[in-house]
Amino acid sequence: MPLSPNESSPRKIILDCDPGHDDAVALLLAHGNPGIELLAVTTVVGNQTLEKVTRNALSVAAVAGITGVPFAAGCSRPLVRPIEIAPDIHGDSGLDGPDLRKPTFELDPRHAVDLIIDTVMAHEPGTVTLVPTAGLTNIAMAARKEPRIVERVREVVLMGGGYHVGNWSAVAEFNIKIDPEAAHIVFNESWPVVMVGLDLTHQALATPDVVERFAAIGTGPAKFVVELMDFFAATYKDAQGFDHPPVHDPCAVAYVIDATVMTTKRVPVDIELTGTHTLGMTVADFRAPAPEDCNTSVAVELDRERFWDLVVDAVKNIGEPSSEVSAA
Amino acid sequence: MPLSPNESSPRKIILDCDPGHDDAVALLLAHGNPGIELLAVTTVVGNQTLEKVTRNALSVAAVAGITGVPFAAGCSRPLVRPIEIAPDIHGDSGLDGPDLRKPTFELDPRHAVDLIIDTVMAHEPGTVTLVPTAGLTNIAMAARKEPRIVERVREVVLMGGGYHVGNWSAVAEFNIKIDPEAAHIVFNESWPVVMVGLDLTHQALATPDVVERFAAIGTGPAKFVVELMDFFAATYKDAQGFDHPPVHDPCAVAYVIDATVMTTKRVPVDIELTGTHTLGMTVADFRAPAPEDCNTSVAVELDRERFWDLVVDAVKNIGEPSSEVSAA
Amino acid sequence: MPLSPNESSPRKIILDCDPGHDDAVALLLAHGNPGIELLAVTTVVGNQTLEKVTRNALSVAAVAGITGVPFAAGCSRPLVRPIEIAPDIHGDSGLDGPDLRKPTFELDPRHAVDLIIDTVMAHEPGTVTLVPTAGLTNIAMAARKEPRIVERVREVVLMGGGYHVGNWSAVAEFNIKIDPEAAHIVFNESWPVVMVGLDLTHQALATPDVVERFAAIGTGPAKFVVELMDFFAATYKDAQGFDHPPVHDPCAVAYVIDATVMTTKRVPVDIELTGTHTLGMTVADFRAPAPEDCNTSVAVELDRERFWDLVVDAVKNIGEPSSEVSAA
Amino acid sequence: MPLSPNESSPRKIILDCDPGHDDAVALLLAHGNPGIELLAVTTVVGNQTLEKVTRNALSVAAVAGITGVPFAAGCSRPLVRPIEIAPDIHGDSGLDGPDLRKPTFELDPRHAVDLIIDTVMAHEPGTVTLVPTAGLTNIAMAARKEPRIVERVREVVLMGGGYHVGNWSAVAEFNIKIDPEAAHIVFNESWPVVMVGLDLTHQALATPDVVERFAAIGTGPAKFVVELMDFFAATYKDAQGFDHPPVHDPCAVAYVIDATVMTTKRVPVDIELTGTHTLGMTVADFRAPAPEDCNTSVAVELDRERFWDLVVDAVKNIGEPSSEVSAA
Repeated sequence: MPLSPNESSPRKIILDCDPGHDDAVALLLAHGNPGIELLAVTTVVGNQTLEKVTRNALSVAAVAGITGVPFAAGCSRPLVRPIEIAPDIHGDSGLDGPDLRKPTFELDPRHAVDLIIDTVMAHEPGTVTLVPTAGLTNIAMAARKEPRIVERVREVVLMGGGYHVGNWSAVAEFNIKIDPEAAHIVFNESWPVVMVGLDLTHQALATPDVVERFAAIGTGPAKFVVELMDFFAATYKDAQGFDHPPVHDPCAVAYVIDATVMTTKRVPVDIELTGTHTLGMTVADFRAPAPEDCNTSVAVELDRERFWDLVVDAVKNIGEPSSEVSAA
Repeated sequence: MPLSPNESSPRKIILDCDPGHDDAVALLLAHGNPGIELLAVTTVVGNQTLEKVTRNALSVAAVAGITGVPFAAGCSRPLVRPIEIAPDIHGDSGLDGPDLRKPTFELDPRHAVDLIIDTVMAHEPGTVTLVPTAGLTNIAMAARKEPRIVERVREVVLMGGGYHVGNWSAVAEFNIKIDPEAAHIVFNESWPVVMVGLDLTHQALATPDVVERFAAIGTGPAKFVVELMDFFAATYKDAQGFDHPPVHDPCAVAYVIDATVMTTKRVPVDIELTGTHTLGMTVADFRAPAPEDCNTSVAVELDRERFWDLVVDAVKNIGEPSSEVSAA
Repeated sequence: MPLSPNESSPRKIILDCDPGHDDAVALLLAHGNPGIELLAVTTVVGNQTLEKVTRNALSVAAVAGITGVPFAAGCSRPLVRPIEIAPDIHGDSGLDGPDLRKPTFELDPRHAVDLIIDTVMAHEPGTVTLVPTAGLTNIAMAARKEPRIVERVREVVLMGGGYHVGNWSAVAEFNIKIDPEAAHIVFNESWPVVMVGLDLTHQALATPDVVERFAAIGTGPAKFVVELMDFFAATYKDAQGFDHPPVHDPCAVAYVIDATVMTTKRVPVDIELTGTHTLGMTVADFRAPAPEDCNTSVAVELDRERFWDLVVDAVKNIGEPSSEVSAA
Repeated sequence: MPLSPNESSPRKIILDCDPGHDDAVALLLAHGNPGIELLAVTTVVGNQTLEKVTRNALSVAAVAGITGVPFAAGCSRPLVRPIEIAPDIHGDSGLDGPDLRKPTFELDPRHAVDLIIDTVMAHEPGTVTLVPTAGLTNIAMAARKEPRIVERVREVVLMGGGYHVGNWSAVAEFNIKIDPEAAHIVFNESWPVVMVGLDLTHQALATPDVVERFAAIGTGPAKFVVELMDFFAATYKDAQGFDHPPVHDPCAVAYVIDATVMTTKRVPVDIELTGTHTLGMTVADFRAPAPEDCNTSVAVELDRERFWDLVVDAVKNIGEPSSEVSAA
């Protein structure tokens, strides 16, 4: 993948995900955009069981022709709470809709937590960005197992939470609510955390015109996106009453590619762990200017046009991977 | 006070308050607007101690020439939590700024809780509206002591809470946070509750043009309002960084006078009692259409122009009370 | 009822109860023992609905020939929580077992909260003891409505809680757990609180020899006690696996009659309001000598022999009330 | 170390500790008793920082002449909560009192979590017992990182908690309270958990006669124990008012050596995570016979004589390690 002309070096990321329709799109964006160097992909229980989301991640890699990137499976359950999955949104497979491709390579033998730690420690300080688009179990475990990664990571750009919007309760979002203790760990460490939450991602709706743009590309990966979006639209309509599905996870990747694709605001954010109605809420304090040592920002407003341009371009860049051809 | 021509009968209210600068304006609005029949005024600890806010209520009555309305003192502390007051906003007296007039009548000998109960039970079902502009201790106690008031009250229109805004914590408002258990009681009873919260009242800013309109009236009560607003502006600037102070409490009275002065949305609201960061939050669930039995609404958008017209007109209607003249 | 020779004045109490089998025995003990002057009996939702426990209280009064004591009904639901009752222990009526006598007098028209306040305020400071043997809703409401009762009451001797024993959860007792916020209010006021909890009352078992002593008395009230104990034994066996039922409530009355019938220990006690597994626990801190200002004591060890002597003697003292005779 | 004649194979354990005076004694007991095969020693933040307790563990190994056993450092902070240490009990070094020996070997390069996982997975299922005598951070992390250890471990015999006794709050014990989320993880897994809590360990007091027995042995390790106990006695007296210090941690090792040295009771135990006064409490439910699937037991009564015999004999068995001699 060639670098974009005006960037001397792409941004190195580890994508920690639970594919998941929007995780799949996030992976395509990370792979297809030249501003991103995908160092590793790790999986964690979330939208479906660890086994299923890990298979799905490998399946997306097959569709996209991703090679040479280690994929590793991580935690199969949240730190403290029982497992909650989201089959009403992502189906029984976690990636219902398209036929799922068979994996074309093996998982890295390491645990995701170790792959994250090893990768961060193997690169220069301040060069690796963590991009979690799932529950934060793996990231929290890595921070506790190897505390030195915290000051070594460039930033954590996560999809999760919402300062004024909830989807898994009135005021909590799925990725945070399924493992609030892990989220508490991640938000309270000293690394910079950019929370790309529902306030932002509910602006990233896959409207028919957007889906049409993917359809027009005509490649296997593009067709895959269209099939994902068709299923996603149906379940988001049925389960949550959305006219068009919000495609959450690529928003976090888009921020890493180009932070100007959205506005953000620096505010203190903490995770509610004991609330009866607010468990897992990302409590943001907008009352005053953020204190000097505030390490958390929240995404506010999306440049919808440029966001979808990024995703469409990435899928175009991926083209028709040879494995796709040979598999046909 | 003459009725407005197009209303056969004014709305009967009990104002439960803790004056408090904005409570004072709320009382002036209730007294001066012909659409309101003020059945009783009750006080409760909040902005200052019960003793101070009760004296203040009587003092406002003296300024406004209110007579023939029973005033009664209520609870001197919240149900479960220790007392929290707000001298940084309302000063040491609870009504700092103007010289406080001496009361011109005695308190009703009854406890506020009993005055509320007696008044509601003495009127036809569905005719009395409760308008709490303070912590909800009195109202909660009344509902527990005489449960029959719940179905007898027309509605509870309260100033308090905020679905996206807090002022006493990141996500909680003063009136709710100082007695969250009382708020829990009030919001979970079956009567209709209209929550006029910070989302709305932060639109009711006493900007200089507004203050100028009061100054132009030229009466004692108008001068009193101006002096209140001057003090309020200074403390809201210092304590919370507001350019102009939000005048919360009259918004609830304004809703009773004319519900179209603001938009509201019917959503389930509950009170968080166990949250570490969210104690006293008014948790509103906007995810789906409110269920059939939803009894709570939240105020969303204020018609700022018409709101201030109501308040200015009320102060004009009050004119120059004779007690004011005689005291001069 | 003659005074015991060696007491110049009996102890004045208000019994706040939810009869309830053991409440009934407590009422008999209070009525039949010459060391007690029963100033008032108030009822509150608990073992059964307010309506049922109030009828039961009047019915016990009829059995015992109590006259000249005001009985008043209080709160029909806990402060914050939904109603929980205990039909598995006390049956559908709240006093299953004996045929229930018809009341022989009317309720006092006042609310229990007001009767408590009026009674305390009408007597000399330091002379009235509150004896709650139910949820603490009425007592908490009274303390909030008229804070002056707190320093005027001699002490609060309550049946409830348990420092090492629970019955309504692993670590919480029924009377506290059904209204933990009320208990929090009562335990955190400055009046002396003696907690006669399950640690003590599980020593007050109505073993067959005890029941036989009542049966041998042969009067109507004694027969009533035997029938209560027979039913109580069956439900405590079925619901909680006890070989013999613990007769909780008269233990609190016995303490007022003669504090030496049990040992107590002064320890700080607070009420847990937010625990997932510990809601309503009476958390006692035995780690160090109680601080100077500690106002709470817990009952530790019962002189079982003397306790039952007190109850048996009281029932003997009551004899065969004339109303009982005339009703036969 | 010869096997005891009547045991074909010693019990394999991993000791996870935070030395700590009583941890040191636990390590001596595990090393000196022929019924124990020490597979690994892992350390975790607790009584002091990870750095200090890890150095202390190596120092104890030097005193005791332990060789050939991997020692590894683990988590340097609890999962969710801030670090709490106990210098008032264990001094600034975590092992104040004796001069601390220099380590005679290097730490295993692996993280404690991985050493635990590797060790359990390398042995036959049902053969390895985990003996945590510190906060449960390492054990919880291991269970989440490699869930298969849960059914592979024989049992978890831990020092921590207390069903009726607290030391770090009214009702919580230090090891549990410093990382309640980790404890929640460990107690809610399906492995058998034996909780050797304060109820038991407060019976293991190092009275002067006990200390005298160690003094009489006359070896370096015995002198080390005496010096530890002297310091421990002073701080337990000062900080918690004990006449003699409770030597908690070796009780867990003693249980593994010979379960009959104490009585235990099978009861459900869960960890309180949200309580205001009860955070970190080990909530045990004694109300009814434990359900079939109950995997938790609590230690109740210690055979004090036999317990101290075990510890004294172990120290005798250790003798005078050659490293001690050569270091002199």
